[in-house]
Amino acid sequence: MFQSFEVTARPEQGPPRLRALRAEMAAEGLAGFIVPRADAHQGEYVAPRDDRLAWLTGFTGSAGFCAVLEEVAGVFVDGRYRTQVKAQVAADFTPVAWPDVGLGDWLRQQLQEGGVVGFDPWLHTPGQIHQIEDALKGTAIVLRPCDNLVDRIWPDQPAPPLGPAKVHSIEFAGESHDAKRARLAQELREAGHRAAVITLPDSHNWLLNIRGTDIAHNPVAHGFAVLHDSGAVDLFMAPSKLEGMAGHLGPDVHVHAPDTLLTHLAKLEGPVRLDRQSVPLAVAEAVGDRATWGDDPCALPKACKNEAEIAGSAAAHLRDGAALCELLAWLDAQPAGSVTETQVVTELEASRRRDNALQEISFDTIAGTGANGAIMHYRVTEETDTTLEDGHLIVLDSGGQYLDGTTDITRTIAIGAPPEDACAAFTRVLSGMIAMSRLRWPAGLAGCHIEAVGRMPLWLAGQDFDHGLGHGVGAYLSVHEGPQRLSRISTTPLRPGMILSNEPGYYREGAFGIRIENLLVVREAPALPGGDAHRAMLEWETLSFAPIDRRLIRPDLLERSEIDWINAYHAAVAEKIGPRVSPATKLWLDAATAPL
Amino acid sequence: MFQSFEVTARPEQGPPRLRALRAEMAAEGLAGFIVPRADAHQGEYVAPRDDRLAWLTGFTGSAGFCAVLEEVAGVFVDGRYRTQVKAQVAADFTPVAWPDVGLGDWLRQQLQEGGVVGFDPWLHTPGQIHQIEDALKGTAIVLRPCDNLVDRIWPDQPAPPLGPAKVHSIEFAGESHDAKRARLAQELREAGHRAAVITLPDSHNWLLNIRGTDIAHNPVAHGFAVLHDSGAVDLFMAPSKLEGMAGHLGPDVHVHAPDTLLTHLAKLEGPVRLDRQSVPLAVAEAVGDRATWGDDPCALPKACKNEAEIAGSAAAHLRDGAALCELLAWLDAQPAGSVTETQVVTELEASRRRDNALQEISFDTIAGTGANGAIMHYRVTEETDTTLEDGHLIVLDSGGQYLDGTTDITRTIAIGAPPEDACAAFTRVLSGMIAMSRLRWPAGLAGCHIEAVGRMPLWLAGQDFDHGLGHGVGAYLSVHEGPQRLSRISTTPLRPGMILSNEPGYYREGAFGIRIENLLVVREAPALPGGDAHRAMLEWETLSFAPIDRRLIRPDLLERSEIDWINAYHAAVAEKIGPRVSPATKLWLDAATAPL
Repeated sequence: MFQSFEVTARPEQGPPRLRALRAEMAAEGLAGFIVPRADAHQGEYVAPRDDRLAWLTGFTGSAGFCAVLEEVAGVFVDGRYRTQVKAQVAADFTPVAWPDVGLGDWLRQQLQEGGVVGFDPWLHTPGQIHQIEDALKGTAIVLRPCDNLVDRIWPDQPAPPLGPAKVHSIEFAGESHDAKRARLAQELREAGHRAAVITLPDSHNWLLNIRGTDIAHNPVAHGFAVLHDSGAVDLFMAPSKLEGMAGHLGPDVHVHAPDTLLTHLAKLEGPVRLDRQSVPLAVAEAVGDRATWGDDPCALPKACKNEAEIAGSAAAHLRDGAALCELLAWLDAQPAGSVTETQVVTELEASRRRDNALQEISFDTIAGTGANGAIMHYRVTEETDTTLEDGHLIVLDSGGQYLDGTTDITRTIAIGAPPEDACAAFTRVLSGMIAMSRLRWPAGLAGCHIEAVGRMPLWLAGQDFDHGLGHGVGAYLSVHEGPQRLSRISTTPLRPGMILSNEPGYYREGAFGIRIENLLVVREAPALPGGDAHRAMLEWETLSFAPIDRRLIRPDLLERSEIDWINAYHAAVAEKIGPRVSPATKLWLDAATAPL
Repeated sequence: MFQSFEVTARPEQGPPRLRALRAEMAAEGLAGFIVPRADAHQGEYVAPRDDRLAWLTGFTGSAGFCAVLEEVAGVFVDGRYRTQVKAQVAADFTPVAWPDVGLGDWLRQQLQEGGVVGFDPWLHTPGQIHQIEDALKGTAIVLRPCDNLVDRIWPDQPAPPLGPAKVHSIEFAGESHDAKRARLAQELREAGHRAAVITLPDSHNWLLNIRGTDIAHNPVAHGFAVLHDSGAVDLFMAPSKLEGMAGHLGPDVHVHAPDTLLTHLAKLEGPVRLDRQSVPLAVAEAVGDRATWGDDPCALPKACKNEAEIAGSAAAHLRDGAALCELLAWLDAQPAGSVTETQVVTELEASRRRDNALQEISFDTIAGTGANGAIMHYRVTEETDTTLEDGHLIVLDSGGQYLDGTTDITRTIAIGAPPEDACAAFTRVLSGMIAMSRLRWPAGLAGCHIEAVGRMPLWLAGQDFDHGLGHGVGAYLSVHEGPQRLSRISTTPLRPGMILSNEPGYYREGAFGIRIENLLVVREAPALPGGDAHRAMLEWETLSFAPIDRRLIRPDLLERSEIDWINAYHAAVAEKIGPRVSPATKLWLDAATAPL
């Protein structure tokens, strides 16, 4: 079982660790020390050794940081985690509403006499540090890079992960790493850059067609890389992870021990491109004035999937859709009041594992019934496990990592007779999801320009939801991948081959949650008869296939063209998934995909 | 008659003037001189004396510039004017596709030996000059401010306008200038600014509740102003314009001759706020290092109309809608082939003038029939005047300036039997216009976030149009007003009281044009039953009332809810406009607003 329902941190673990950390601070002459959730790779998942924030405070959210001072320890969390943090940390910690309160302003108020605040320069970008320093201007508070003090007081801190890496087959990658390195090197030469430092594992794993097993849910091998304008790559990764891969890596990829990175950086000729979003301060300081700021050169090419990657993703989605349908058929056969959330998660993972293609789940399944469905990032534990009762909805958001692709799909299912207002809201969420799926738009637009399309039906009813409409998804890589997003803050133009989720939702606190999610891939739209021949336009191709719960749809709230879309989608689900499921599930599927 | 159909410039006027300008350049030791369309106020309309670009080149578009060198004279125009410029300038001028080709790059190519290029520092902002200088880095080309050489060679150049200013009544302004100055001064104090220089006539006219007659279509008095953090204003405007207004201006508004501006600026204590979008370089240099860059302090308060301004605008729109309906009824009574574009324009202006409230038209009426309709900024002249034939559409885009408000409305009318594909496109344009009119959205969003809503029906048919969906509109001020826009590049959040146009279109070159435009005002949306009580949302209130041509609507392409919107809108038109028109027009109106 990839998912566990264990409670992994307890409030009472915090206070003694906090005392130990303060003793270290005193010994170093520090008035404060910052403990972020991030590791050196600024990713969503961290290795157990890097989970310092949870170890110290008990707070297990995927973003946030703790600022420990002599008298107070602020745990800064965003809107998603305001309730959770209160339950997870002891009274010695003070939750702070971030980003409403910035760290600089908070320090300014807490340290009126001034003082030195330490931080680990591998865990922060220069931009993050400069932003805090800007807010501290005119005070006697100074930020100073130092050793990680948490590592000193963590007696049984796990070692860095040494999971074996593996070759990502050309069948699924669609392009050799020679070819990728050559085209990115040309881009560097055209920009006049001699090299680029790549600190994001997704990026160098994509570049070199390797994958790994260093962290949960995200099939990457941790490390750093330098891409030279010759196309050669220096890869800083424990050689033990790369055993047997010399043939794959070839003569132009040179493997070095990770702890030699800074020495190598010191010798590079400039200009050296650093990614302003993600580079650790320690790396930026080693490059010094040879640095030129830009984007990770892998980010955009990785986001624009080639035909092999798209075909792989489509195949993974059919396999995954069949597994989800087995679960949904099983769930419908259980009487209301007879199963709990953890049973649904366990059964779903078992269904995904059945054909042995599953490498991992792509994130902890969100299975929230009743009021739990309104907690957008709900992770069920033994303590919160809730029975699915008559009149509940359950939000089921899950995905798998397969060699050929990464999936992420959400369906909201009625348990027994659903309440009327939930059906109305579900139908509006569905309208938005359909409107985005059917969209066709002029090339050049970004997520910020079209996201409204997926929200409009809710807006017209005075409703909305507080997360983005969609995120980028990798090809057997991260389930959350940039730079593409369907969000009001995303200005990256959408390009053919980008995979994104389309997941409008609606959440009524204390009552129910609704989310419907398919993955879509951006395609060039063929010209239409009567359309503008000179205009390059883009459209979506849907990758995800599983029924949308007909019991929650109110056809009277839909336009005819929306009903036509649902019927056509369900016909495609029946055609594509039908041959892949058990006879019993096939019967269920026929009913679940019948025309409205 | 406010509108003229005269051809105001001829290609043959250009060459002798160009020779004279080059002689002045030689005398000054200049290798080049830049002649922009702009005046010192960076507005859309300029006084005849400032129409240097048209006088020199023959090009009459509302944006562009000429870069005159010894051997070549480039006329830089954007996509709207690529065809027009070729017809308007002599062969001595070279049209340049701007901004694809920037001035800096063009100078770099033309002046390989280097040289000094002169420009008038009143007609360019520092940002514009710096952008060119950036592109010239590493060359021997230098930009140098100098006298305006066109003014030296223009023997009968008109004098600066001295139109009388007038008080803008509190009945229509809704707020005294004392109150406006007090609240803007407080904003300056909160920002730590001692003063702000206001160079946009719209802004200081709004601030002081005055209007003027200095330029066509735009009821402003030209001048400059300095707002102090005390609330006092120094107004640099010819005193002859302000005769009899001392009582209105009161003791805290000090009038000075315009030519004393720089002397006053030299004595100001800093920080002095300058608007980075619009301040002339000459002003910025006079302020020097006391400058702090920001936004014009009047821009946002002016855009957010108060209830008196909104009520005034609504009243102006009913008056204007009645005048338009008289014209539309008259037009429908004319047999196809019997009237021309100029007759329509003349008849429409006469209809607007009939009740004496019209102060001016708010821009030259666009009346484009057949293929002329596809020219988005078409201005009919004696030479292009075209007869309205059976099977034509005519795009009629016009507006009036009234003491209580500024109007801008477009209707597209069928002449005889319209072609089938035009009806389909018209119906899609209408769908987009309806979708935007019905929108309700969370507070905080900008035009870039919602513009897609008005384009989507065209996109789904593979069509689009190459102008923004809408622009801001003033309250008896400019018909094009910022910062609010419905455009993919507008990131200014929409706020209650902002008036914008909603004007999707479709243009088939050589065949027909379609545009439907209403003005809308942003309102706080009341909570809806079942909606999210905690969510602040905004919606539109429609200001414009005139029938949408039913002969061009294909109901089979519309959803039921769209037909309901049209019927409700037409019922409102009948109710509001019916009592204001002649009996004959009332009969026409009843038919034109009958339910679909």
